Amino acid sequence: MQIDKNQLIPLYKQVEHVLEEKITSGHWEVGSQLPTEQELSDLFDVSTITVKRAVIELVNKGYLFRQRGKGTFVSGAVKEQDINSFISLTTDSEEEHPHELISFSIEDAGIEVAEKMNLQKDSPVIKIKRLKTENSEPQALEYTYLPAAKCPGLTPNDINNELIYNLLKGKFNIALGRAKAIIKPFIVLNEQAKLLNIESGSAVFEWERFTYTKQEEIIEYSKFYIRQDKETYYTEVFF
Amino acid sequence: MQIDKNQLIPLYKQVEHVLEEKITSGHWEVGSQLPTEQELSDLFDVSTITVKRAVIELVNKGYLFRQRGKGTFVSGAVKEQDINSFISLTTDSEEEHPHELISFSIEDAGIEVAEKMNLQKDSPVIKIKRLKTENSEPQALEYTYLPAAKCPGLTPNDINNELIYNLLKGKFNIALGRAKAIIKPFIVLNEQAKLLNIESGSAVFEWERFTYTKQEEIIEYSKFYIRQDKETYYTEVFF
Repeated sequence: MQIDKNQLIPLYKQVEHVLEEKITSGHWEVGSQLPTEQELSDLFDVSTITVKRAVIELVNKGYLFRQRGKGTFVSGAVKEQDINSFISLTTDSEEEHPHELISFSIEDAGIEVAEKMNLQKDSPVIKIKRLKTENSEPQALEYTYLPAAKCPGLTPNDINNELIYNLLKGKFNIALGRAKAIIKPFIVLNEQAKLLNIESGSAVFEWERFTYTKQEEIIEYSKFYIRQDKETYYTEVFF
Repeated sequence: MQIDKNQLIPLYKQVEHVLEEKITSGHWEVGSQLPTEQELSDLFDVSTITVKRAVIELVNKGYLFRQRGKGTFVSGAVKEQDINSFISLTTDSEEEHPHELISFSIEDAGIEVAEKMNLQKDSPVIKIKRLKTENSEPQALEYTYLPAAKCPGLTPNDINNELIYNLLKGKFNIALGRAKAIIKPFIVLNEQAKLLNIESGSAVFEWERFTYTKQEEIIEYSKFYIRQDKETYYTEVFF
């Protein structure tokens, strides 16, 4: 293969370019599995460390994703969306974005959630954990927290059939004021990685969303962990 | 210390809460170094794996950052800024945000940059690599690419004293049309981590910025790698 050890370009960059070309040319199709790092190392006659580095670069660029214990795969096209539409997009119809309910409980807020929501740590909170899928592939892990006192009688079935914003407005008569979302890079480990079906240690988007009532009380707090090979965000200015 | 092995809360969460309280209460000051993982493990009588997990969670939350070969430190306040101001903020006065020039060269675009900028891979491109510092601490690693044909005679000294947008407009008479910036989570490795003074494998923000002329040609392409303990971004909607 086209690896030249006498060239000035680092070996991992050369490997990266060859792999990238195989992907962008369509030689390797979306969803197809890459040879193992050992196989690629034999193929290119370079160390597995060199191969690993090239693969990490291509994961970072969004061309590849790694699945726990399964291997490395070619990513589909990443959905690029206006970053300002993140909040409103999360109010899309549920039918288009199926969510799998992982857990639903009413518990004490606990230190962390209490701090975020301006509650006492023993205030009862509805805690909802869901996995958003698309084409039966995990896309985002979502944690939603609602003050139980404001949402009496909410059941798992309610959130299966209706959007949370619609429930707050329709079922509980709450006037929403504003929502703020904060983005961060985040490294998922263990169970979270497993649910998202990516390698432990992968970088994902973390969005924290705070929804306020017209009275400026926090009525909803959510955390979203979104695979970077599934979504990306842009902002634009015109001069 | 307040770790209770009979409690239902996982040990790492308990360790995390104790550490978080020491930080938020100001018991540990901004910039101060944490005890080593071994020392914390002895202190709490838990495994170093448990300590490591608690520390990663606190790094993810922005409370701590890890410095290569030095240890773990308490983060300063993270600057939270409107995500839409990212592009315009990068046009702030240079004096307020000192940049250290790492390299400046005129080279062939190469496959990757050519693809991003719609150039031939052997088109000459000015490649600029800089480190943005604040209070003498690295904050962002910035790569800027300019088509050499459009910026004749540009010198390292020019960019030291003037903003790139101002140079394009003033020195080279280019009418800017728009700029688009795309955000992604990114794992920095080796040299990049070293320059940013964080552990290899840490998650940072990657911003890619494309600046277009009024004629819709790409006149500037930049990549920014920004430490997540230094900046964070939000977006907001009002209902």
